[in-house]
Amino acid sequence: MHMRYDILIAGAGMTGATAARVLAEAGLRVCVAEERDHTGGNCHDGPDEYGVIVHPYGPHIFHTSRQAVIAFLSRFTDWRAYEHRVTALVRNRIIPLPFNLTSLAMCFPVREAQRMEKALIQRHGRDGQAPILELRRSQDACLRDLADFVYEEVFLGYTQKQWGLAPTEIDPQVTARVPVRVNHDDRYFQDSFQHMPDVGFARMFDRMLEHPGITLRLGTPVADVGAAARAVIHTGAIDEYFHHRLGALPYRSLDFDFRHYAQPRHLPSAVLNYPDAAVPWTRITEYRQLTGQEHPHTSVSVEYPRPHEPGRTLPYYPVFTDDAARLYADYRELAEREAPEVIFAGRLGAFRYLNMDDAVLAGMEAARQVLDRLG
Amino acid sequence: MHMRYDILIAGAGMTGATAARVLAEAGLRVCVAEERDHTGGNCHDGPDEYGVIVHPYGPHIFHTSRQAVIAFLSRFTDWRAYEHRVTALVRNRIIPLPFNLTSLAMCFPVREAQRMEKALIQRHGRDGQAPILELRRSQDACLRDLADFVYEEVFLGYTQKQWGLAPTEIDPQVTARVPVRVNHDDRYFQDSFQHMPDVGFARMFDRMLEHPGITLRLGTPVADVGAAARAVIHTGAIDEYFHHRLGALPYRSLDFDFRHYAQPRHLPSAVLNYPDAAVPWTRITEYRQLTGQEHPHTSVSVEYPRPHEPGRTLPYYPVFTDDAARLYADYRELAEREAPEVIFAGRLGAFRYLNMDDAVLAGMEAARQVLDRLG
Repeated sequence: MHMRYDILIAGAGMTGATAARVLAEAGLRVCVAEERDHTGGNCHDGPDEYGVIVHPYGPHIFHTSRQAVIAFLSRFTDWRAYEHRVTALVRNRIIPLPFNLTSLAMCFPVREAQRMEKALIQRHGRDGQAPILELRRSQDACLRDLADFVYEEVFLGYTQKQWGLAPTEIDPQVTARVPVRVNHDDRYFQDSFQHMPDVGFARMFDRMLEHPGITLRLGTPVADVGAAARAVIHTGAIDEYFHHRLGALPYRSLDFDFRHYAQPRHLPSAVLNYPDAAVPWTRITEYRQLTGQEHPHTSVSVEYPRPHEPGRTLPYYPVFTDDAARLYADYRELAEREAPEVIFAGRLGAFRYLNMDDAVLAGMEAARQVLDRLG
Repeated sequence: MHMRYDILIAGAGMTGATAARVLAEAGLRVCVAEERDHTGGNCHDGPDEYGVIVHPYGPHIFHTSRQAVIAFLSRFTDWRAYEHRVTALVRNRIIPLPFNLTSLAMCFPVREAQRMEKALIQRHGRDGQAPILELRRSQDACLRDLADFVYEEVFLGYTQKQWGLAPTEIDPQVTARVPVRVNHDDRYFQDSFQHMPDVGFARMFDRMLEHPGITLRLGTPVADVGAAARAVIHTGAIDEYFHHRLGALPYRSLDFDFRHYAQPRHLPSAVLNYPDAAVPWTRITEYRQLTGQEHPHTSVSVEYPRPHEPGRTLPYYPVFTDDAARLYADYRELAEREAPEVIFAGRLGAFRYLNMDDAVLAGMEAARQVLDRLG
């Protein structure tokens, strides 16, 4: 078989595309095989049938504090400043998330809210973070009340729906790590760089992959490439790579109900969360608030978490159980034994939740490993 | 007693202020006595303690199709285009009000909504209005379902709270006159002129009353003016004028819970209605969306309807019962007998709900009557 490429990369998502670009610029011949008909993986965007730009795989908001990531991506797009804000419908009020002093003022009578605020500032400092778990153990009854409220009204129902768990299956020790913010900052992220790609995600990835050293094959499973390579980066699921030989790694999937409405604006913020366990969806996203697109009408997605069925749904969130951790470790061993030439990377390859900037770094790291190996 | 004024006007609200200006410009000497310390009546605005301009007596949105009113008010203010939009929280969705085709698409599954839309257009025409009452009598089961939904989920609970009635006390014949809009127009009003005074309501009224022929006495009950006049326009409540001698005319009052939040925007629209009978308030208003004021933070009012207690609360909405109509007629007779020189006008004087433009016209009409009388 003719050795056409130096590197074969399975997947043109954030990790695969980044690795491809870095390696091509290092002078290697790279082939990227992507099963779908577009680059960017789930981090994709494009106009719906009404011309409103949406994210077909759910909202992706770029934020980072890592200079290397900003520098790399800035070669492929200009940026539009965007500070993401999330609200939640809690007891019929629209409150900011993460839960902060503004949320507090919305959920409690004035006097009680003032008492809680004062206690929070005394104990955790202005601009501090007060984890629910700590608040629950507080000697101050009003802080215990606050912790119970936030746990029950903001986290419990959402977590149940997100992971498909009964309330008894939820470990408060885990959920209760989420902090109350002791200030009025209602930006969802705290990163120093909060911008969206001005050209959109799709165009940013297309540009990243436009390089004479890169051959991009869309709509092509890696098995169909029919060319050998000196090294392989696999950004698909590690269990799929081995045809689920040891069993399937558990993922949570999502159904999206996209709706278009003839009105200029639908939601109070780009994302509205529904922590109420009785409401079947977890959140609604209004895309024009993310993209800043000028359009007289609006499109939203209503998000329903659901179990993942390999081959029928897309894997979104790794489900971290002890069993899953063991199974993943077994797959890693299998990989070292049977596929030592393959680097598994990215959200699916590493069975980890990755933010977008994490995925870019994962792509850079995978490229570095390849360069080390090939000398 | 020295005849100092030609006209004494009780009340510096929309009706009283308009009458005062018209009469002063006709060369008469006018005294306006206003109990409160500001002009404009309930149609008042001003900064709260955080510097956010609010309407202390609840949201006032100016809209009219009457050229005479626009021409008159435009002498005292420039205008800022403002199209009012109202949304309602219905079954956890934020829908436009009045209920339109967009609301329909939000409340029903796609197929059902399409069937209803088609039936509405066939029967009532695109851009038509379909009163719930008619829809309820439709031969088409899906339109009857729609009518029931809108009646129960949008009107019933809100009406109960607004008027303090039990569901059995509500006459569906009255409520069901409200139409479903057979289009996607989500502007709350249909008037040709939808603008807010650029200088604010308070300044607009102050300017209207700045005239050499007008003496404005704020903080002064009309009884304390201590000067006679050739005619009197009374814009206060007619029953109060006669010290409730025949009994009190029934009014609905409002409590406002003003809240300030350290976030740029709180609501999806300027007003969010809560039709759910189980929620104690009827609506929340975000004032910066009405005023267009630039400010990093926001102030809202949560509105709770309540019974009116003369002397303790402000009368807002006349309660139209048969008894009330008879009592008002009795007061009119009493007025003709005992106070023929007094013209009762405006929302309180005429025991009628008046829009702002109606109140301006009422002021013009009262002025015309005065000029007729004084020859």
